[in-house]
Amino acid sequence: MAGNTFGQTFKVTTFGESHGEGLGCIIDGCPAGLQIERQIIQNALDRRKPGASINGKLNAAVTARKEPDEVEILSGIFEGKTTGTPISLLIRNTSQHSSDYGNLSTTFRPGHADFTYDAKYGIRDYRGGGRSSGRETAARVAAGAVAAEFLRQKGISITAYTIRAAGIDAQKRNFNEIEQNALRAPDNEAAEKMQARIEEIRANGDSTGGIVECLVKGCPAGLGEPVFDKLDAELAKAMLSIGAVKGFEIGDGFAAADSFGSTNNDCMHSQDGKPVFDTNHAGGILGGISNGNDIIFRVAIKPVPIIFKPQETVTKKADGTFENTTLEIKGLHDICLCPRIVPVVEAMTALVLADAWLEGRF
Amino acid sequence: MAGNTFGQTFKVTTFGESHGEGLGCIIDGCPAGLQIERQIIQNALDRRKPGASINGKLNAAVTARKEPDEVEILSGIFEGKTTGTPISLLIRNTSQHSSDYGNLSTTFRPGHADFTYDAKYGIRDYRGGGRSSGRETAARVAAGAVAAEFLRQKGISITAYTIRAAGIDAQKRNFNEIEQNALRAPDNEAAEKMQARIEEIRANGDSTGGIVECLVKGCPAGLGEPVFDKLDAELAKAMLSIGAVKGFEIGDGFAAADSFGSTNNDCMHSQDGKPVFDTNHAGGILGGISNGNDIIFRVAIKPVPIIFKPQETVTKKADGTFENTTLEIKGLHDICLCPRIVPVVEAMTALVLADAWLEGRF
Amino acid sequence: MAGNTFGQTFKVTTFGESHGEGLGCIIDGCPAGLQIERQIIQNALDRRKPGASINGKLNAAVTARKEPDEVEILSGIFEGKTTGTPISLLIRNTSQHSSDYGNLSTTFRPGHADFTYDAKYGIRDYRGGGRSSGRETAARVAAGAVAAEFLRQKGISITAYTIRAAGIDAQKRNFNEIEQNALRAPDNEAAEKMQARIEEIRANGDSTGGIVECLVKGCPAGLGEPVFDKLDAELAKAMLSIGAVKGFEIGDGFAAADSFGSTNNDCMHSQDGKPVFDTNHAGGILGGISNGNDIIFRVAIKPVPIIFKPQETVTKKADGTFENTTLEIKGLHDICLCPRIVPVVEAMTALVLADAWLEGRF
Amino acid sequence: MAGNTFGQTFKVTTFGESHGEGLGCIIDGCPAGLQIERQIIQNALDRRKPGASINGKLNAAVTARKEPDEVEILSGIFEGKTTGTPISLLIRNTSQHSSDYGNLSTTFRPGHADFTYDAKYGIRDYRGGGRSSGRETAARVAAGAVAAEFLRQKGISITAYTIRAAGIDAQKRNFNEIEQNALRAPDNEAAEKMQARIEEIRANGDSTGGIVECLVKGCPAGLGEPVFDKLDAELAKAMLSIGAVKGFEIGDGFAAADSFGSTNNDCMHSQDGKPVFDTNHAGGILGGISNGNDIIFRVAIKPVPIIFKPQETVTKKADGTFENTTLEIKGLHDICLCPRIVPVVEAMTALVLADAWLEGRF
Repeated sequence: MAGNTFGQTFKVTTFGESHGEGLGCIIDGCPAGLQIERQIIQNALDRRKPGASINGKLNAAVTARKEPDEVEILSGIFEGKTTGTPISLLIRNTSQHSSDYGNLSTTFRPGHADFTYDAKYGIRDYRGGGRSSGRETAARVAAGAVAAEFLRQKGISITAYTIRAAGIDAQKRNFNEIEQNALRAPDNEAAEKMQARIEEIRANGDSTGGIVECLVKGCPAGLGEPVFDKLDAELAKAMLSIGAVKGFEIGDGFAAADSFGSTNNDCMHSQDGKPVFDTNHAGGILGGISNGNDIIFRVAIKPVPIIFKPQETVTKKADGTFENTTLEIKGLHDICLCPRIVPVVEAMTALVLADAWLEGRF
Repeated sequence: MAGNTFGQTFKVTTFGESHGEGLGCIIDGCPAGLQIERQIIQNALDRRKPGASINGKLNAAVTARKEPDEVEILSGIFEGKTTGTPISLLIRNTSQHSSDYGNLSTTFRPGHADFTYDAKYGIRDYRGGGRSSGRETAARVAAGAVAAEFLRQKGISITAYTIRAAGIDAQKRNFNEIEQNALRAPDNEAAEKMQARIEEIRANGDSTGGIVECLVKGCPAGLGEPVFDKLDAELAKAMLSIGAVKGFEIGDGFAAADSFGSTNNDCMHSQDGKPVFDTNHAGGILGGISNGNDIIFRVAIKPVPIIFKPQETVTKKADGTFENTTLEIKGLHDICLCPRIVPVVEAMTALVLADAWLEGRF
Repeated sequence: MAGNTFGQTFKVTTFGESHGEGLGCIIDGCPAGLQIERQIIQNALDRRKPGASINGKLNAAVTARKEPDEVEILSGIFEGKTTGTPISLLIRNTSQHSSDYGNLSTTFRPGHADFTYDAKYGIRDYRGGGRSSGRETAARVAAGAVAAEFLRQKGISITAYTIRAAGIDAQKRNFNEIEQNALRAPDNEAAEKMQARIEEIRANGDSTGGIVECLVKGCPAGLGEPVFDKLDAELAKAMLSIGAVKGFEIGDGFAAADSFGSTNNDCMHSQDGKPVFDTNHAGGILGGISNGNDIIFRVAIKPVPIIFKPQETVTKKADGTFENTTLEIKGLHDICLCPRIVPVVEAMTALVLADAWLEGRF
Repeated sequence: MAGNTFGQTFKVTTFGESHGEGLGCIIDGCPAGLQIERQIIQNALDRRKPGASINGKLNAAVTARKEPDEVEILSGIFEGKTTGTPISLLIRNTSQHSSDYGNLSTTFRPGHADFTYDAKYGIRDYRGGGRSSGRETAARVAAGAVAAEFLRQKGISITAYTIRAAGIDAQKRNFNEIEQNALRAPDNEAAEKMQARIEEIRANGDSTGGIVECLVKGCPAGLGEPVFDKLDAELAKAMLSIGAVKGFEIGDGFAAADSFGSTNNDCMHSQDGKPVFDTNHAGGILGGISNGNDIIFRVAIKPVPIIFKPQETVTKKADGTFENTTLEIKGLHDICLCPRIVPVVEAMTALVLADAWLEGRF
């Protein structure tokens, strides 16, 4: 009955609904003395917010709705430094116009959590999806920005990017290009094809998904807490806790299933007396502990559940029984979530690593 | 520094090394009054143990080493029923012959956790892999048997099985055949092909991997704790916490990335006034909460890291520096872990569901 | 590094400094469907706030400083009911005038946490005591109001009151009188004597302490989680987590040490076939589990550490060494905390009981 | 539903019933590389066990029943050092003779947890008190011995002792005398008086209680996690989690309630540039954080509930209703628990401090 806290030591608890007063979090366990400016958190939020144009281009993948998402630091930072006390961050909702939700209070949108929230809680804030809205991730991104800054000061960097969208693969990994295209793909050329395909899907009233990859550089060997809180287990949980994510794989992932031990094992050699891996099929984690290699993993993103085609679903009647309904949704919405999930993947990765760092480094 | 507990309410803490005195667990939070016989736990362990022949056939996939794995109930069960106090289970190690570990105390086996345990802890019980040995899962299976019995009495069943091994797919899902072949595949014919291919790989001194699927029937809508402790997030963590697992996907999983909203959304209709899903692309979970559909997910198993080919690796010298080594391993070992991981996948699934049940049902 | 969460199921995480932007909390785990009005929370805060006059009388025990302490509900409550999602409450600071803290950034006030916060964190928000200020309890009172309302709807009531202050005992327990005097004592006559004595102490530039008792009625048998999370153990922790509390005793408490088994044991008899206790030396808890009797316990409150006499202490110099200082403090301050701690004791008791209720009632 | 784990980082989970197979624990989070011998744990258990004679004298306070309490290390220690993996300790029960429990399965002994366990769980192992037996503390003492050794290597020592029993106070604090008398009092002369008084009480078929004090030396400033997990709050919880404890006070404790700020505040001065406290009314903790002074606290122990006088109580009948019963108990039992609780108080204190050390020292 209480699943809104992430982490054991760098503990983040979030709150907030899509159309309530606001969203935010408390970070408990961030070490004292960390230099952190509000603008770093704001920058992260700006990357996540809807309607963000990337490099001056209209982002075809995402909605044109605008939300300012201004973050306010309520506690825990004094004269530009963390004090070791809880850091509270607040993002006010401003653009929620509770005008008309039609029958969404009783009709369950396919692919959404409307039905399951009703089944679990018996009551829900149905406006804009309430707590199950993707907007909830704003609080994650704010908290993740603090974690990422902590890690940056330890020499660890985290970069996520779209490697596949609408059935089209990125052909290269040029990190300079990630913020140059509307898909946050490390390949401008592929991104144009993805976007063109997305426009066709949009025109068809439909939506699509994709795959986001994440690369962590600079992580030392030794992070992770076997046997249950393995570093890859925590990453998997973090990723699957993001609404639209349906799969996770690390290193060779599902391809490893078809591989051989002689191929899949990462051999080592000594370089100047230090151990070095020849390959990285494991994706940087062995036995649930980071091995000093790059950590690399991928997540599968399902198609946006909001589509403009009519859909068959059910409405809950006053007597608790259900009747058939045909649902038609209008308005502006994302077609492919990949570019907006990229900062969320980075944020959740930062939360996992900051927590593992603090858990392990006594 | 303390990652050996799983669950928030049905809490399992495990201990034990491959070649120490024994393995076991404490289950804290199992409701009082659950009828449970020792033999149920023993049966689960017997399915997991090495050298188990299935239906009288020699299991080519697994080692011929024999361990009795007798479980002893130390506490928490009185006159055949749980009392609400901690249940402690102990499995003595018996077949560990600490004869000769050669240079394994200082040489790091590729694909194993030897190097990372050394990096993290600076000291390790190197005999048979110590805590990072697959033998650690015996404690999980014992705890999982209690959880599964709890769930069984609620009408929930969990079945895992091999759907791919050595590059060969099962062509059907006949659950009656699972325990009729050495791969625990729901397809005897495919299993024979898998086994033949595994024999070739064994002859070549190599190993391979596969994919295990898990199906949960009878789970009601409403289990799971958003936003971080979503049911699929907990399942992903549970699966990735198993040593050889490199990937997790639920429902359509990675295939959903290429799908469309109009295909991927599971529409609903009313049947006798009750809501029913037309399809199950989501795999039984929406917004992190079970939706009453079957829960279905898959995990990727990497090739067994122990192979009989020489491998390049490093040895840690007394002065803390490393030197190159060629490692050759002899003895009996698993070639493909799938059939032995099947009961572990079931056990971890049971732990997740029992915990979610108790967390959510106030 | 993260001690700002209380509870396992009804989990409350607080934040905020005395002179920062505000204080507040997130309640995670409050069941859905609880009817709760903002005014109930506001009323609880109004009882705690400084300068509150009780029954029109100036409260001599407490400072005349005024803070409005308006609570805002940011999430988790929709159309007057909890939704099962996190409830976030915010209380803005308004009366903090960061005018002049003199040398309090480097001089450690005796009896305060200035020195220990510096020793632990190396940095602190020294304005008004920062996180260690008694003002921190506002967030507890807000969260406790939600817990108390949950319990009230289950038939459980919690009443705390001053039974001793400035060395003077209450001679009776008339609950109607509690809010009729400035000490929140259940004895108006004794309260007048306490207040007269407090005025003398104030005139002398000094301060004093007292004892607060708490009575819980309507708690059924069965709450509490042995062996470590016993109900009395959680109450003891909750009480000692309040800044000025130096002792806790339940039932006969320290007097039980001198008692005999034949006196101290609470015998039982059957009344209409139901078990009834003849006495309540245990204070309503046996073996860490509520026994259905009234729960009754007492806490010792130390004298307010702020006094107007000069005190010897140390100042931290720029080079990290310390030098002797004589500290003189001016302004309005509490002389005896008892009446203001009463609502905090009730709030923390409510948090313990709501958590135990939810932990135990599957 | 799961209160058998203590600590956040140095986490101890215990199990076991008085007359089951055994008792024990898993310690998860003990740092790797700690040198620890089995005999250290055994010595701690030997001090706690019933019938232990102290300095060759028969201990009048405690029962003459003998249990060997041999501890076995099942995991986590390799070649004399901890490995960072869970440490499992097992103590077999040997002297439980399940001969005759008469009507104790349905009759509730006054002052025991029989009634509340029945109310909570509906089922209980009634043999010898089951989980609620004082024998449960054996597992705490075993775990505490590991924690105490960890702390000893950091320069921290913990000493508990009886300062009052059967209404008689110790007149001095000579630690050399603690193990020289049957009460574990730091005053042999007072101990003789206590014991003489206890013999009278025994002859009268009755029992009595006392007060145990605990002194911690060598604890540096900075331990403890405000605002809820304050060091004194954790100590209070730890103490009240011990079966017979009814009160806790730190420093001046309840006497502080009658004190003045000018007396109770501990002033400081600079000695060689370092801060030193002039007094220790606080008992070594300010704002929930250790201040470098000795930590000193006291706990109230209730009379042993087992007495040889007839007592009125109830019996649960087959139909769930209750009837009146007169209970008479025979056999050997403790008269005053103080000397046996001394090692338990030390063990729980060690668990709190080891946990706080690891929580705070990043």
